[in-house]
Amino acid sequence: MTGGMATPDPQHLAERVVAGMVKTDAFSRWLGIEVFDVAPGRASCRMTVRDEMVNGFGTSHGGIVFSLADSAFAFASNNCGRLSVAIDCSISFPAAVRPGDVLTAVAVQESGSRKLAFCDVTVRNHHDAIVAHFRGTVYRTTTDHIPELGSTLGGRPASE
Amino acid sequence: MTGGMATPDPQHLAERVVAGMVKTDAFSRWLGIEVFDVAPGRASCRMTVRDEMVNGFGTSHGGIVFSLADSAFAFASNNCGRLSVAIDCSISFPAAVRPGDVLTAVAVQESGSRKLAFCDVTVRNHHDAIVAHFRGTVYRTTTDHIPELGSTLGGRPASE
Amino acid sequence: MTGGMATPDPQHLAERVVAGMVKTDAFSRWLGIEVFDVAPGRASCRMTVRDEMVNGFGTSHGGIVFSLADSAFAFASNNCGRLSVAIDCSISFPAAVRPGDVLTAVAVQESGSRKLAFCDVTVRNHHDAIVAHFRGTVYRTTTDHIPELGSTLGGRPASE
Amino acid sequence: MTGGMATPDPQHLAERVVAGMVKTDAFSRWLGIEVFDVAPGRASCRMTVRDEMVNGFGTSHGGIVFSLADSAFAFASNNCGRLSVAIDCSISFPAAVRPGDVLTAVAVQESGSRKLAFCDVTVRNHHDAIVAHFRGTVYRTTTDHIPELGSTLGGRPASE
Repeated sequence: MTGGMATPDPQHLAERVVAGMVKTDAFSRWLGIEVFDVAPGRASCRMTVRDEMVNGFGTSHGGIVFSLADSAFAFASNNCGRLSVAIDCSISFPAAVRPGDVLTAVAVQESGSRKLAFCDVTVRNHHDAIVAHFRGTVYRTTTDHIPELGSTLGGRPASE
Repeated sequence: MTGGMATPDPQHLAERVVAGMVKTDAFSRWLGIEVFDVAPGRASCRMTVRDEMVNGFGTSHGGIVFSLADSAFAFASNNCGRLSVAIDCSISFPAAVRPGDVLTAVAVQESGSRKLAFCDVTVRNHHDAIVAHFRGTVYRTTTDHIPELGSTLGGRPASE
Repeated sequence: MTGGMATPDPQHLAERVVAGMVKTDAFSRWLGIEVFDVAPGRASCRMTVRDEMVNGFGTSHGGIVFSLADSAFAFASNNCGRLSVAIDCSISFPAAVRPGDVLTAVAVQESGSRKLAFCDVTVRNHHDAIVAHFRGTVYRTTTDHIPELGSTLGGRPASE
Repeated sequence: MTGGMATPDPQHLAERVVAGMVKTDAFSRWLGIEVFDVAPGRASCRMTVRDEMVNGFGTSHGGIVFSLADSAFAFASNNCGRLSVAIDCSISFPAAVRPGDVLTAVAVQESGSRKLAFCDVTVRNHHDAIVAHFRGTVYRTTTDHIPELGSTLGGRPASE
């Protein structure tokens, strides 16, 4: 079975991986996250903040903004085809977010190796103001999301 | 009106502030967060991970664990009485979390000034394994949560 | 004395502030840091890693790369004219650095308010490979670096 | 060759590893770092801030405090015997440091697996005030520092 040896089309692979992840991602569904752009090492997501997402100050709970960024980060860092798990994340909050705000997170993998990858995610509101800077690091396992497609990392899938 | 000038009882103030925050914190309620311990500069919270909280890997979404830690952080860093907003947070994930896991977050303010405070939060599962290390920094505004009680920071409430 | 009320030329102010900081920055001098580009909210620095900068693995000590990034961050976040001190920094190391490597750090303030600013710094080696991702947050004091020039933050200098 | 299979004495191994790292760590020597306590997964270091370590504000350069913490982190996270490299670090600065200050960094590995470890480092001045909170994550390579002693991670050394 040589599927893993062929170099998959990176864009096709990226879309297939993200589609598969979205399907089972119950919490992203609860958040109302829509993935509107996928490319190798990139993913862009959008959601609207609802009343049930506020903290004790009447603004968006920090965990909501983090979750949106974290989902975009997962879609960007996994769409090479290799199952990759978050190790460390950091987030800064330059501005408050309120119910009704439409947030967009753009995640970009900026560097990486076969074991690790480093992503940047910027979250903006519908006035294009930055509401969060997020960075995340993943550890790449040896498991392929779609074994018959392999990954773009150039290695053999773990199943071989 | 001299309420803010008196030194409030720190434990009473801490409990009052957290009770007030919890009341309006819709997202912590959705998460099922229970605050089971409050002391000045400290807060401990508990929640159970539900099926609707998973990501595309069938494990808890990183945003769920972050949100629990972030709530504990907010309760610990605000219970001096001064409204304090998160600036920067970081989180590391030493172990995966699964539906059914009962998570406990213990937040402790480790240092601070009148403008800033620095907290550490450790999240453990019901087997007492650490599943997240979280750190958060807040900026202290000049607004008191409960103006008639003031704050333990030693300054006059903003309303004076 | 109305100096602080006039809007200073941002580029002139940025250059003056950084020149003043560099003059007294003994450790940046020891590191051999050269500031080769300054603009409002931006600064670019360069240095060569020397044998005395290695750790126990024969590669550059993490503190060296951090220090270069931190200097660029300080120059970028202070050149609005307002003395600004670091609160939180994070750094990731996608690749090792070795003696002889020429490192370039580009710091950019990405968002901010009158109290806080958030910067991104990317460090590359002379092969243009990213060796560090750095983020830093500053708290803006009310002190102006050059009182007669004021700051570009639009407020009165602290001395008035 | 069975050296790696025997379980080494963790304390003896920890001391041997740190002694070896210190010997070649030129930058820690320049900083004047003294390692005064080593235990499995722990290391404590001390140094005095000198005039040549200041930034443009006359206080200690952030890179100096980071470097001390980073050295303690490296000694703590490597003394299991397995060569471990830093991936992500974060640092917060609750208080300024000045020339003449004697700083102590206590590094503790708080969690970890065979691939990753997570450490906390607290830096205090000689008045026992916290001047930095540091966290660091390492990736564990398959190389042993002292091949004939192996590591306490329970696995075979890479040389077998």
